[in-house]
Amino acid sequence: MDINEISLQKHRELKGKIAMQLKDKLDQQEKLSIYYTPGVAAVSKQVAEHPETTRDYTWTNNNVAVISDGSAVLGLGNIGSRGALPVMEGKAMLFKHFANIDAIPIILDVHSADEIVAAVKAIAPSFGGINLEDIAAPICFEVEDRLKTELDIPVMHDDQHGTAIVVLAGLINAMKVTGKKLSECRIVVVGAGAAGTAIIRLVEQYAHPNIIAIDSKGIVSKSRTDLNSEKAQLLEFTNKQDESGVLSDALKDADVFIGVSKAGLLTAELVAKMAKDPIVFAMANPVPEIMPDAAKKAGVAIMATGRSDFPNQVNNSLAFPGIFRGALDNQVTTITDDHKTRAAEAIAGLVAEVSAENIIPSTLNPDLVPTVAAVFEH
Amino acid sequence: MDINEISLQKHRELKGKIAMQLKDKLDQQEKLSIYYTPGVAAVSKQVAEHPETTRDYTWTNNNVAVISDGSAVLGLGNIGSRGALPVMEGKAMLFKHFANIDAIPIILDVHSADEIVAAVKAIAPSFGGINLEDIAAPICFEVEDRLKTELDIPVMHDDQHGTAIVVLAGLINAMKVTGKKLSECRIVVVGAGAAGTAIIRLVEQYAHPNIIAIDSKGIVSKSRTDLNSEKAQLLEFTNKQDESGVLSDALKDADVFIGVSKAGLLTAELVAKMAKDPIVFAMANPVPEIMPDAAKKAGVAIMATGRSDFPNQVNNSLAFPGIFRGALDNQVTTITDDHKTRAAEAIAGLVAEVSAENIIPSTLNPDLVPTVAAVFEH
Repeated sequence: MDINEISLQKHRELKGKIAMQLKDKLDQQEKLSIYYTPGVAAVSKQVAEHPETTRDYTWTNNNVAVISDGSAVLGLGNIGSRGALPVMEGKAMLFKHFANIDAIPIILDVHSADEIVAAVKAIAPSFGGINLEDIAAPICFEVEDRLKTELDIPVMHDDQHGTAIVVLAGLINAMKVTGKKLSECRIVVVGAGAAGTAIIRLVEQYAHPNIIAIDSKGIVSKSRTDLNSEKAQLLEFTNKQDESGVLSDALKDADVFIGVSKAGLLTAELVAKMAKDPIVFAMANPVPEIMPDAAKKAGVAIMATGRSDFPNQVNNSLAFPGIFRGALDNQVTTITDDHKTRAAEAIAGLVAEVSAENIIPSTLNPDLVPTVAAVFEH
Repeated sequence: MDINEISLQKHRELKGKIAMQLKDKLDQQEKLSIYYTPGVAAVSKQVAEHPETTRDYTWTNNNVAVISDGSAVLGLGNIGSRGALPVMEGKAMLFKHFANIDAIPIILDVHSADEIVAAVKAIAPSFGGINLEDIAAPICFEVEDRLKTELDIPVMHDDQHGTAIVVLAGLINAMKVTGKKLSECRIVVVGAGAAGTAIIRLVEQYAHPNIIAIDSKGIVSKSRTDLNSEKAQLLEFTNKQDESGVLSDALKDADVFIGVSKAGLLTAELVAKMAKDPIVFAMANPVPEIMPDAAKKAGVAIMATGRSDFPNQVNNSLAFPGIFRGALDNQVTTITDDHKTRAAEAIAGLVAEVSAENIIPSTLNPDLVPTVAAVFEH
């Protein structure tokens, strides 16, 4: 049986992957009086009078909503909210497994920024944090910006920032292997959606390298008349020499290729145009922009993908569990760029012996979550 | 330590009463591929293409949202959404304990009918059912009516219907003890809010007795000019002889007093006006309209309260676990009046030896949930 068949069968068998559990058994009548009426009234009164103590008496100190409208589900695109639910349940499993966080999948039957923001704000007091997931660009940017401003709990769109943090961690270690300096690199980012935009912003913020953004029409440049406001904003962070052209122009003397685009886009001929010791993060799912063996033949020095069956997996699971663990435990209400870059450094620092095939730590590293979470300590 | 102190301490100690759990351990790399990427994509595709199979592959076959805006929290009133959260977590415990249903507390930061309906509709695909809780009248009526019409999953406002079902169950057995006929009874219902209204509608629908509704201004009658539309609607079900007056007028020759009002409202003098073998359901919380010992002295034949420390406790927990268990298992999309009256009969039927002090079964009766759930079998 292939993985798809196994997956379908297992899901049917379990009928969903998550369930609730009670922290204490209701095995005596007295327990009902303590946890429900009449005793709970004293707790409700306490929380109503001192809302800042809600987290001390309820599960909001340890829970996160994993929210999607299903408009950009991994590799499947806009398949609707129900189609997103199995992924959100899976994400909830990762939250519990890696960080012991109680994550609740919430799928939304609304898809405009206004409606998503209204729905999330309405239910927000139920949670200690909000993990936005698989919401399409450009709506994801407005939704996250507004929720971060308007809510007093941490909000993170993981497709953007989880990916960006792990890419930056990988780049930090790739510099150690190649001896390049990130601030002096020419970096080409292909794909200017949610992940690409967040990678560009975080890497620029961290080291101010020369970044060229590419979308389906070519280099994002001032001369383009077809840019939406989000892409136009990228010009603040990219293309300092005001270049224009296509991917092959951009890759001339590029040190780093970062792909969040589509399978097979990076050919050996294109790699040949890059600077010495090219670094390639080919993260298209499930088939990368160039396969690792082809990349090696073409002279790529360091290769990362989104896949678990090759070395150097850029995996969001390296970041989000520790990010939310740290934010919840330290009552951090806003996840800042500083948190993100320090998380990237922390993740990079966990690789004991950095090498071309080992720039990113394993999700099984037991120090991972506590080290990332420590970034949020005051 | 009194119960309030114990309750506060236990809640602080546990930091919330519920948590998530995984149905399978993520103890091998392969499990991640099955439950998350890449395997989950096949499941998402399946569900997106055949939305009717969502329940076969996700936890929606067994989960219910417990939703409140905190506008009418038990005995505490309008204390806001955060204050409601400890009660909703307690309710989630009851769902899991009694019916093995995964209930997720959702508290809402919005309070108008339009906003509540919009928020619940937005998140509804995440759940297999919606239990509305502690939402004030009259907004609760509109919210429930609209959600029942507009959603394709079962929606029930438990303060209304859970209470009404158990009251009807108690009345059915009270008839057996006293030899009265429900259809011939004069029933006075004091309190025309969420619970009172639902009790009136269900009892009328079941046996068409003569019901008089009382609110803080007296008998609900045609001559009243101060009735909102919900109370005006009650005239369809009550006061067939177009009486007016106050409680003492209404109680003349009444067979049954049903109180969802306030402590001490029913005096011995008032009981004396009632018919032979008066039946009193005094459900004000935590102090009933008349205490059981005072009621006995005043000649009450059958006495029920909302309290666990007296016989005949009218307890919603007798109804909602089985109701949602049955609706989920049988894919029932609307909980109808017929389901409710049959649930009441089922609950009444579980009392083996009916007597004045034993008209309502125990929540510990192991047949309770399956018997109520069976009402939903096709």
